[in-house]
Amino acid sequence: MSPSVFFWVTYVPCLCLGLLCLLFVSFWSSHWHGGFSWDGSALQFNWHPVLMVAGLVVLYGNAVLVFRMPFTWKQKKNTWKLVHAGLMLLALLLSVLGLCAVFDYHRSLQIPDMYSLHSWVGICTVIMFAFQWVLGLAGFLLPCSPLPFRSNLKPVHIWMGKAILILSLTSCISGITENLFFSLDGVSGEPYSSLPAEAKFANSLGILIVAFVLVVFGILSKNSWQRPESENESIPS
Amino acid sequence: MSPSVFFWVTYVPCLCLGLLCLLFVSFWSSHWHGGFSWDGSALQFNWHPVLMVAGLVVLYGNAVLVFRMPFTWKQKKNTWKLVHAGLMLLALLLSVLGLCAVFDYHRSLQIPDMYSLHSWVGICTVIMFAFQWVLGLAGFLLPCSPLPFRSNLKPVHIWMGKAILILSLTSCISGITENLFFSLDGVSGEPYSSLPAEAKFANSLGILIVAFVLVVFGILSKNSWQRPESENESIPS
Repeated sequence: MSPSVFFWVTYVPCLCLGLLCLLFVSFWSSHWHGGFSWDGSALQFNWHPVLMVAGLVVLYGNAVLVFRMPFTWKQKKNTWKLVHAGLMLLALLLSVLGLCAVFDYHRSLQIPDMYSLHSWVGICTVIMFAFQWVLGLAGFLLPCSPLPFRSNLKPVHIWMGKAILILSLTSCISGITENLFFSLDGVSGEPYSSLPAEAKFANSLGILIVAFVLVVFGILSKNSWQRPESENESIPS
Repeated sequence: MSPSVFFWVTYVPCLCLGLLCLLFVSFWSSHWHGGFSWDGSALQFNWHPVLMVAGLVVLYGNAVLVFRMPFTWKQKKNTWKLVHAGLMLLALLLSVLGLCAVFDYHRSLQIPDMYSLHSWVGICTVIMFAFQWVLGLAGFLLPCSPLPFRSNLKPVHIWMGKAILILSLTSCISGITENLFFSLDGVSGEPYSSLPAEAKFANSLGILIVAFVLVVFGILSKNSWQRPESENESIPS
């Protein structure tokens, strides 16, 4: 099997897993929690899991894979750097909107903010992501960025990119856990420990997110899917 | 700064973070939850977080770094493969003991098992770890293992090694979240949302575990800390 075909045989299931994550998180919010609104009610909170999974996991995970797609290797790297930065900006905006949804809902119902471990890890993830985006723009897209800065930044950018995806996964799994304890043990009559349909469904969403992130890490770890550096790209970018 | 000195400047803080994780998780169980016992009571449960953090995070994290230590590069690789496998076996045994602690406690108090997302992710982590250990033994330590099997296994072993560490982190953070909801909102008079001393302490433990795992990933991502392959080690190992 050629490397290009092998890539697609791995990437298409990865894409399907990402779409399944989106489908599951949207269905969870709409079927068990009443759907969506932006009015400070619990329906506004429902945007939080959907926007975080969409931005921090699915879009982010696809954006990190842009340079691994073999059909891009013969095209200008600068074009794909812009695509990478554009997708990452969209992912960051969705995440910030997801944070606004939960903070607004908390303010409206006077629920305390930022006390849980989920919120501590989650806020670190988004701050690190914003920092990484600005640093990436300054280092790899601005033509005036000095060469030593670029070459020192590249390994840090790669490590931080993986760290953000790990933190996103951790935030999602702890967030689903927290949400299920609130909605099942706190509100509905069916305790989490009796594993009602909602619990089974949301646990499966968690497993889908885990699978998606691990497949992304699998694709990243394969050396033969790294974009080959051509001669005119010998400067670190 | 020489690569060797730079390695130690990074590894020593990593080691300190790991020891702090152990100290924090032990203090949490002993100060707020009454200490340890092996009698089916809540004091037996207290072994669960301590053994999982010790085995799946701190010992595992250090065992994956064995080949990155510059002083080992001039010594026989086989010796360090045995050290790696030995540390991993100890980490696996601690994790299995940690699982026994919680299953035994559940059975003794007739609490349902395996319903939460934390338990689903956690059990996947330990099963994957056991599978990885047996596969690693068969592929890299048994002299009769065929060469093509070794060379195909190596990238899978590296990817699965990272995947297990990511899953361990995810299990720990969701486990701390679950534990705090039980012990604060369920038992004591101080809700989690008022951020009492125990919540601040256990959240900090979570952040320490995150920091430890991200530093381990940082060390793994540095190419110049990879053990150089000598000529007589050209066969994949």
